[in-house]
Amino acid sequence: MIMNRLSFDELSSVFNSILLKHGFLEQDAKLCADIFTENTFCGVASHGVNRFHVIIKMVELGLIKPDAKPTLSNAFNGLEVWDGNYGAGVLNAWQMTDRAMELASNFGIGCVALRNTNHWMRAGAYGWKAAENGFVFICWTNSMPNLPPWGSKEARTGNNPIVFAVPNSPNHVVIDTALSQYSYGKLSTHKRAKKPLPFVGGYDSNGELTTDAAEIYSTFRALPIGLWKGAGLSLLLDLIAAALSGGQTTKDISKTEYETGLSQIFIAIDMKRNLGSTDMNKMIDDTIEYYKSGEVVNENEPVLYPGERVFKVREENMRNGVEVEKEIWERILRL
Amino acid sequence: MIMNRLSFDELSSVFNSILLKHGFLEQDAKLCADIFTENTFCGVASHGVNRFHVIIKMVELGLIKPDAKPTLSNAFNGLEVWDGNYGAGVLNAWQMTDRAMELASNFGIGCVALRNTNHWMRAGAYGWKAAENGFVFICWTNSMPNLPPWGSKEARTGNNPIVFAVPNSPNHVVIDTALSQYSYGKLSTHKRAKKPLPFVGGYDSNGELTTDAAEIYSTFRALPIGLWKGAGLSLLLDLIAAALSGGQTTKDISKTEYETGLSQIFIAIDMKRNLGSTDMNKMIDDTIEYYKSGEVVNENEPVLYPGERVFKVREENMRNGVEVEKEIWERILRL
Repeated sequence: MIMNRLSFDELSSVFNSILLKHGFLEQDAKLCADIFTENTFCGVASHGVNRFHVIIKMVELGLIKPDAKPTLSNAFNGLEVWDGNYGAGVLNAWQMTDRAMELASNFGIGCVALRNTNHWMRAGAYGWKAAENGFVFICWTNSMPNLPPWGSKEARTGNNPIVFAVPNSPNHVVIDTALSQYSYGKLSTHKRAKKPLPFVGGYDSNGELTTDAAEIYSTFRALPIGLWKGAGLSLLLDLIAAALSGGQTTKDISKTEYETGLSQIFIAIDMKRNLGSTDMNKMIDDTIEYYKSGEVVNENEPVLYPGERVFKVREENMRNGVEVEKEIWERILRL
Repeated sequence: MIMNRLSFDELSSVFNSILLKHGFLEQDAKLCADIFTENTFCGVASHGVNRFHVIIKMVELGLIKPDAKPTLSNAFNGLEVWDGNYGAGVLNAWQMTDRAMELASNFGIGCVALRNTNHWMRAGAYGWKAAENGFVFICWTNSMPNLPPWGSKEARTGNNPIVFAVPNSPNHVVIDTALSQYSYGKLSTHKRAKKPLPFVGGYDSNGELTTDAAEIYSTFRALPIGLWKGAGLSLLLDLIAAALSGGQTTKDISKTEYETGLSQIFIAIDMKRNLGSTDMNKMIDDTIEYYKSGEVVNENEPVLYPGERVFKVREENMRNGVEVEKEIWERILRL
């Protein structure tokens, strides 16, 4: 694969001008471009540069409204329901993260339920943002059906990524995990590179577990994390997101060709008040030190904590520029 | 294994009189006995009748204070920190569930962080209770180190069970899942019955994945759900519980021989206001119908939703009485 190496500004300004051409307002285009760039720099090209063309296509199809703004539907103290009005998923999610933090500042804990939104790309982006602002954060989204319930051969639930984030210095602890062993973004990267997955990630056409990402794409039978556990968790996240927001479930989303009209939850807890009188940095550093202190399976593979790799990859990419596949970059330049 | 079959009242009244003998106040003994009985009737003997003697032992050792009551440490609107004062875990968790629901009634969403508590037994009990009262509920606990981080051979994090619950009629949707593929309760049941696990659940002494529960007990290398994902999730739940409550992390808990001084989180969201104007029962029933509608892998194994088995098992046990292993029952009668 031939790669281009781009700086943050180069990548972001190309995204920005394409978004402006497609009807995004000036401020929104800049923010949206920065989020796609940040996702790429954090090592998640599948939810950054590699997926940017899909967003533009969805704008062209009228499925993403470039100038829509979320509107408040209903509220009671720390709990609010917003309608995303089919705006860009990253912009809606960004604003709802801000709103959940405001609610948490006012009520200790705040929750925003969002309906009628679009794919938010890298779920972790919202966790990092909230942690950066001193909030514990939990958020999740539902998705189109892309995960079989346990005991089923057919995708009848979503991989519904969920995020838990805790603020720390210098870098936060953030987990961003789809409920499948591998996200479809990851499967797509392995499929294109024709590289086997490190562990089985789903079923092949003979119903056997496989490390072949292309096979999993064709059967659409990804493996849920924890087998029946991840599949069950997925159902619960879908039900809670739809129940609170009044929005669509994965079942409803299955009725349209494109994945649109998602339901999402954003929960923030204000750590600045520190009601537990916790020495946060010390507690987290001690816990991570302990987490890493056991004998390792393979001495070349140290134990990592969630967010550690992202932090390192981002630093490296900020220093050297980020690699973008030539083919993908050329497609973007034609948008 | 020889079994006794007992009614709810028979089991509960034996628990009750033992608890009274060991210093529990009248009302607390009754509630505690009922929770242990309910857990057993729900099919989770490992966190009911099979573990009851451990609680009594911990009372005798002074690790559980039978007459302690949780006290409020700090509060800001919908967020409160409580100290469990080393009371019985089930009683503390029961009361904190009530408190989280009260906060949610007042603020839309409520969160209680609890420190210095003891094992709450069946995590799902609190989810079912909250759902029964019309609340969406999320709760989790940390634990002693019993799960290796991904890439480590040694238990340096907890299996930290987490619960998500949604109210529905006639029966709620509740997932109660440890972050290991099998809880130690489940491993213990298979170990005693000398039955292999249905799927690999951890590593044997050669570092190979195994279905032998006894081997996993000896290596203490349970498999996290989703491999690195469950291990990372475990760290986050531990950090959030300790950060909010000011209580112990899994690392701190590792310093004492017995698992005591746990930190827990209880989050309730009030569905009675129904801010999303959702037709809850219809939405949930439709979603579950869809979830089950795909072709099954094995026609004798229908797709189940989380909570379905518990509901059925409980009904059956209420009708016929619950089976208790003779040896375990005799030990209880000697307490």
